[in-house]
Amino acid sequence: MLKINENYQKLQGSYLFSTIAKKVAKYQADNASAKIIRLGIGDVTRPLTPTIIRALHSAVDEMADEKTFRGYAPDLGYDFLRKAICDNDYRARGCDIEDDEIFVSDGAKPDSGNIQEIFSADSKVAVCDPVYPVYVDSNVMAGRAGDFDEATGRYTNLVYLPCSGENGFRPEMPREDVDIIYLCFPNNPTGAALTKDELQQWVDYANSKGSVIIFDAAYEAYISNESVPHSIYECSGAKECAIELHSFSKNAGFTGLRLGYAVVPKDLKRQGVSLHSMWARRHGTKYNGAPYIVQRAGEAVYSPEGKREIQGLVDYYMENAKYIMSGLKEAGYTVYGGVDSPYIWLATPGKMSSWEFFDHLLTKASVVGTPGVGFGSCGEGYFRLTAFGSHESTREAVDRIKNL
Amino acid sequence: MLKINENYQKLQGSYLFSTIAKKVAKYQADNASAKIIRLGIGDVTRPLTPTIIRALHSAVDEMADEKTFRGYAPDLGYDFLRKAICDNDYRARGCDIEDDEIFVSDGAKPDSGNIQEIFSADSKVAVCDPVYPVYVDSNVMAGRAGDFDEATGRYTNLVYLPCSGENGFRPEMPREDVDIIYLCFPNNPTGAALTKDELQQWVDYANSKGSVIIFDAAYEAYISNESVPHSIYECSGAKECAIELHSFSKNAGFTGLRLGYAVVPKDLKRQGVSLHSMWARRHGTKYNGAPYIVQRAGEAVYSPEGKREIQGLVDYYMENAKYIMSGLKEAGYTVYGGVDSPYIWLATPGKMSSWEFFDHLLTKASVVGTPGVGFGSCGEGYFRLTAFGSHESTREAVDRIKNL
Repeated sequence: MLKINENYQKLQGSYLFSTIAKKVAKYQADNASAKIIRLGIGDVTRPLTPTIIRALHSAVDEMADEKTFRGYAPDLGYDFLRKAICDNDYRARGCDIEDDEIFVSDGAKPDSGNIQEIFSADSKVAVCDPVYPVYVDSNVMAGRAGDFDEATGRYTNLVYLPCSGENGFRPEMPREDVDIIYLCFPNNPTGAALTKDELQQWVDYANSKGSVIIFDAAYEAYISNESVPHSIYECSGAKECAIELHSFSKNAGFTGLRLGYAVVPKDLKRQGVSLHSMWARRHGTKYNGAPYIVQRAGEAVYSPEGKREIQGLVDYYMENAKYIMSGLKEAGYTVYGGVDSPYIWLATPGKMSSWEFFDHLLTKASVVGTPGVGFGSCGEGYFRLTAFGSHESTREAVDRIKNL
Repeated sequence: MLKINENYQKLQGSYLFSTIAKKVAKYQADNASAKIIRLGIGDVTRPLTPTIIRALHSAVDEMADEKTFRGYAPDLGYDFLRKAICDNDYRARGCDIEDDEIFVSDGAKPDSGNIQEIFSADSKVAVCDPVYPVYVDSNVMAGRAGDFDEATGRYTNLVYLPCSGENGFRPEMPREDVDIIYLCFPNNPTGAALTKDELQQWVDYANSKGSVIIFDAAYEAYISNESVPHSIYECSGAKECAIELHSFSKNAGFTGLRLGYAVVPKDLKRQGVSLHSMWARRHGTKYNGAPYIVQRAGEAVYSPEGKREIQGLVDYYMENAKYIMSGLKEAGYTVYGGVDSPYIWLATPGKMSSWEFFDHLLTKASVVGTPGVGFGSCGEGYFRLTAFGSHESTREAVDRIKNL
């Protein structure tokens, strides 16, 4: 009799977004005329830009002609894209990364879920709290998390790094030794960023302990402060301890196109084994390459016109972020993020819980956001708004909140 | 100090295709004028058909307009595609499968590599020999395969089901109890197919033992015999024991576009747990949906024009298969497959080993194929040719072989 992977039984229901959907549906049913504005979504809303669209059409045409048709892509990505990524995201920033250290994929979410597969099943894992749920759930499935403790809202075998207003949402080093450290900066959900000096401390810690950092740089394009590094490889020694994950979703709007990449440096070894070789083998066995047409779209992101257009998208969303930040400050809220990040993280007013504030905002302003507690127990008392809406709806939402 | 997943150390080097490439490169260097023809590839060569191309262009245009732009796709696939798949591949064949039992993915290779994640790490796995390497390697990575035994060329903890000329490349039931059984019919690499009655025996076996069959139907479009089932769900009781994997690669030429699907019936449970729910959770956590534009291309495969065009592709390749089969028979070879499959599997002549025949064909006819031993020890003495070339090159290759 086949037995299941019983670790799946330890996963907690993903009730956050279904609970939100139910509450919103009920409110809309009870208030048919209410014009609900959603600032809870992490998905982009602007269309793909003209240069991307042209690249897609052109690549589609190539697939129609036997002379230019492309079958299986190289497992690790086409050379043209690996080179464009490396030139622009690394060499141009002085990071000593080579083309063949770039592993093209269908996004940072799959990469962040799959990367743990190359590590031992008994590895000790550290995550921030609040946290992007994929880091936790993929390790629960692999048996590294232990059991879920209802009383604490935490898994017994994970090491949680609390992030709150007191530490500026910058986690402190773990007190016990850990093997794998997930860091996402600029952060989802808090919008916090680390300076290069702060990130260097994590690199030094990892190198001193032999840990590996999974550095999720999905929001890198939103960085505005010069002190904030765009890549962990700006830090000295990072090639010996860090894997970096990138996405085309939030800069170029590829959430529905699916493209990302991981950097696994050849200098990164444990027990004398190259993690670069291991990830290459994992890619070659359990993945079959990103679509050619999507990789051509990715290449177009790095063209001069592509770069201008992508910057236009980022600017558009960051104008929303500024409007939300200043509006909420005017209204007396304590707000975080929103500077190097499209996420605004606010302390709920009057000691409301995350869910109480959710209900307050929904019923008094017809605005939907995301309760912070949905990202972890340290998110209680906080609330996430995103800058991914249109200018019009974002302004309307902020004005409603100000008039509460 | 982080430890690696040491199971990766048990993987054997994937030397097959690199050895082929080296031998071919050396031969070409030594014989500059030789016109080498490759009949070893498993990749398609015909371009995408007009209906698919139109669907792609149309979907790309939707992504350019904020009114029709699509962000994150549903994790499990768009309803329009799940319905088209279910209508055409199941309901039209009398299989009682529902839309929401279809899980859209980026291909049968990732699905066949990932599906083992929902099973216990101590599951006993049975594979055919010869076999598609992904089934083996993904289980090696997960720790189910034991150690590689150089003497036998096999992993100590896998159950191998020998397939040879004597049993018509139809595996016999395993003598010991197994939990997971990988079956691929029509088969890669042997081209063998099972009749519905033969497949029913496997379903009955699995239900009697509580095993789960992973049924890889990637070559289903090539079936010509009426006695050969297009889906395992044509067999009684299969919904209680089988997961089926499909690809758009070999019928519609999507090798570079990446689209496939898995069917996990809701009736499939073990230890009282729904494997459908587990696979949904795995998809939701470690995958982020297939690109919208590719899903629209998949939908177009099922349009009336799309179906005609796809049949035209299959007919084109099967004309090659027929030419190879009849030519080799005329030349005195013992050949298998090629009827319900684009793969021709031949017994090497004169007791040559697979690699001896490879060298013979390369140096005497400038034709490249794949040594059967590369797919497992029972592949020794066999050789694979594929029908995925052009008519012209395929005929030229066969004529050369006939004139050896």
